[in-house]
Amino acid sequence: MITLLIEPEELKGDSVEIRGDNYKHLFRARRLTRGSEIRVVDGRGNARWSGVEEIGPKSARLELGDSAPSNEPEGRISLFVVPPKPQRLAVLVEKTTELGVSAIYLISSVRNARTVVSGEMARLGRISRSAVEQSHRSFLPQICGPHSWSDSVDLIAEFESFWVLDPTADRRPEDVAGSSQGLVVGPEGGFTTEELAQLRQLGGDRIGLGARILRTETAAIVGTALLLGD
Amino acid sequence: MITLLIEPEELKGDSVEIRGDNYKHLFRARRLTRGSEIRVVDGRGNARWSGVEEIGPKSARLELGDSAPSNEPEGRISLFVVPPKPQRLAVLVEKTTELGVSAIYLISSVRNARTVVSGEMARLGRISRSAVEQSHRSFLPQICGPHSWSDSVDLIAEFESFWVLDPTADRRPEDVAGSSQGLVVGPEGGFTTEELAQLRQLGGDRIGLGARILRTETAAIVGTALLLGD
Repeated sequence: MITLLIEPEELKGDSVEIRGDNYKHLFRARRLTRGSEIRVVDGRGNARWSGVEEIGPKSARLELGDSAPSNEPEGRISLFVVPPKPQRLAVLVEKTTELGVSAIYLISSVRNARTVVSGEMARLGRISRSAVEQSHRSFLPQICGPHSWSDSVDLIAEFESFWVLDPTADRRPEDVAGSSQGLVVGPEGGFTTEELAQLRQLGGDRIGLGARILRTETAAIVGTALLLGD
Repeated sequence: MITLLIEPEELKGDSVEIRGDNYKHLFRARRLTRGSEIRVVDGRGNARWSGVEEIGPKSARLELGDSAPSNEPEGRISLFVVPPKPQRLAVLVEKTTELGVSAIYLISSVRNARTVVSGEMARLGRISRSAVEQSHRSFLPQICGPHSWSDSVDLIAEFESFWVLDPTADRRPEDVAGSSQGLVVGPEGGFTTEELAQLRQLGGDRIGLGARILRTETAAIVGTALLLGD
């Protein structure tokens, strides 16, 4: 099965033109032929089956059919994460997208407020798009930031239910439930006492992942998997 | 806290000499001073507290004291994994080591039997050692292979209880329990029907990780975390 991410308006029509990189990938590299079935998704949770109808020298046309399974998790997890180094952040984005994260907010803390340049954000977007197709999801997580600490606090405060990962917490992700949750992951070295106090004041309880100290991206990946639990 | 991996014989004595890269890292880069406390581990599950007693121009001496927490999980998970590409395999080794894996066996399958050269094995060993120190474990997972499919089958057969990750399986890792377990992770595209039949004959039941198709390394990381469950 191949999943292809297209524009939301395109998914609503009867057919869609495939050009550029998607055309090259599907019809040059993977050599799809007329009649091949492709699952097309709009990045907003909708999916349809489609069939290759025409293959031209520079574009191809897919005919859109019935709706397809969304393959989305029941729960929604939004990650708030103090970004680790670029390669580690790339792993975090790829893996949590595969697992089913809904949004990734890059936040700042006193212990880490690194800049994320627009080139890196564009790369993270490409990684996430590719992971949506790879894992056959239909929803493309939004990735935004980095936000200042005070903006981060405002964003987190909007969540009815959110959890702060903390190596010293006894409560496990499996013990908490909820259909829409935020998960806050601090920097290596942890949030400062003041930052933790602010998060607690907003209603964020702490959950832990066991005795071993995990890197930021590992904690984010495993925390997402355990909170989603499906 | 700093965790330092030393040789098993060294952990049994009253003191230990630190030289070479460990000396440079601890006393040049991290500038530890006399009296600093270091948790030393032997890679076999044992840990002791130690204090910096003497710092020379090229070596330092730690005095060994009481035993320290091992920070090891209760269960033992051995991974059998068809290796993905080098950078993805490196992520797999680092993350599963942090999470508490006991051993990683690289296996072959019809759909992927890539060679892993000795340089790559050495690099994976360094990544695993570093992850043991980073996560404050005390056990260094053994990494070996790649094994041929028939050798892999023999190795897997020795496990009293093992599970095969399969996207189509309904049973979840959280539903199975056991103190010592093997987890078999196939290549992208999955094992062949014949390979799956052989594994089933050896007693390996299938467990799944939900509707989304995960890359090999993501499945290995999340499967390990869910099976360990602590």
